[in-house]
Amino acid sequence: MRVLGVDPGLTRCGVGVVEGVAGRPLTMLGVGVVRTPSDAELGQRLVAVEQGIEQWLDQHRPEFVAVERVFSQHNVRTVMGTAQASAVAMLCAARRGIPVALHTPSEVKAAVTGSGRADKAQVGAMVTRLLRLDAPPKPADAADALALAICHIWRAPAQNRLQQAVALHTATARKGRTA
Amino acid sequence: MRVLGVDPGLTRCGVGVVEGVAGRPLTMLGVGVVRTPSDAELGQRLVAVEQGIEQWLDQHRPEFVAVERVFSQHNVRTVMGTAQASAVAMLCAARRGIPVALHTPSEVKAAVTGSGRADKAQVGAMVTRLLRLDAPPKPADAADALALAICHIWRAPAQNRLQQAVALHTATARKGRTA
Repeated sequence: MRVLGVDPGLTRCGVGVVEGVAGRPLTMLGVGVVRTPSDAELGQRLVAVEQGIEQWLDQHRPEFVAVERVFSQHNVRTVMGTAQASAVAMLCAARRGIPVALHTPSEVKAAVTGSGRADKAQVGAMVTRLLRLDAPPKPADAADALALAICHIWRAPAQNRLQQAVALHTATARKGRTA
Repeated sequence: MRVLGVDPGLTRCGVGVVEGVAGRPLTMLGVGVVRTPSDAELGQRLVAVEQGIEQWLDQHRPEFVAVERVFSQHNVRTVMGTAQASAVAMLCAARRGIPVALHTPSEVKAAVTGSGRADKAQVGAMVTRLLRLDAPPKPADAADALALAICHIWRAPAQNRLQQAVALHTATARKGRTA
């Protein structure tokens, strides 16, 4: 399973590609940051994010794109830019028919560190260890993108099992009604 | 001046095209709503918004796109979808090199009704009168999109004069320093 993780942002949009399956060592295929100048017009910044994401999709051909779920309650100042950058990332993936998954920051932290309240340094340290890197990826947005991809690889089997269980339950319930 | 107004939304994205100049009667060239199914995946909904906006740009070739400025403080539940739909509209315009302007809801209301706190019915009534329509455009999102376009046409000369004044002042100040 090859996953592109995206930590959305207008100034710095973290991107990281991880390949692997749950329960086996993971491999980092690439990590970086798509940057846009803060003095550019908003529309132009969104075009720059689109071009950056497209390059990463072209180069790595991921099977899934995992994007951080943005909440409107937090960081009121920056949340609009984050929501807009995440929309562009989701659009780029969906346009190619690549499934998009959203994970919350606490889901990502819990997946890689065991605690949903871990700090940036702890997430960086675990990403470094899990991907057998020499040093934590910088900036933090890049490490967060890798953590998102790892989270998706590890959560995917559980999510699939859940979906299967729901589907089975629904089918059984329907069968019960028609019997 | 031909302007596409966009009242962004995921479920209903209002679009309206108005042509004219400040101080002269205005003409409506088109009005409608881009809809996406609320049970579709978010990525797919953004792709549908993109396709809808692209069709309006192809058909009407506007010189400006006016989008409602989204605030994170209001309507916490729907604000993320609104921000994401507005990002797609801005992206589509900027990709074509069409200038994008953002106007706040109160700027739009003030422009068409004289009051920044006018209600939907009042905005609909004034849009109907200003564009010499037989009835208010429905749904309200469509009327709001037309109001945005009208607001842009009427505010543009003032904004241009302001930009010119700032540019002149900057040039004069620079001249003063080098003299």
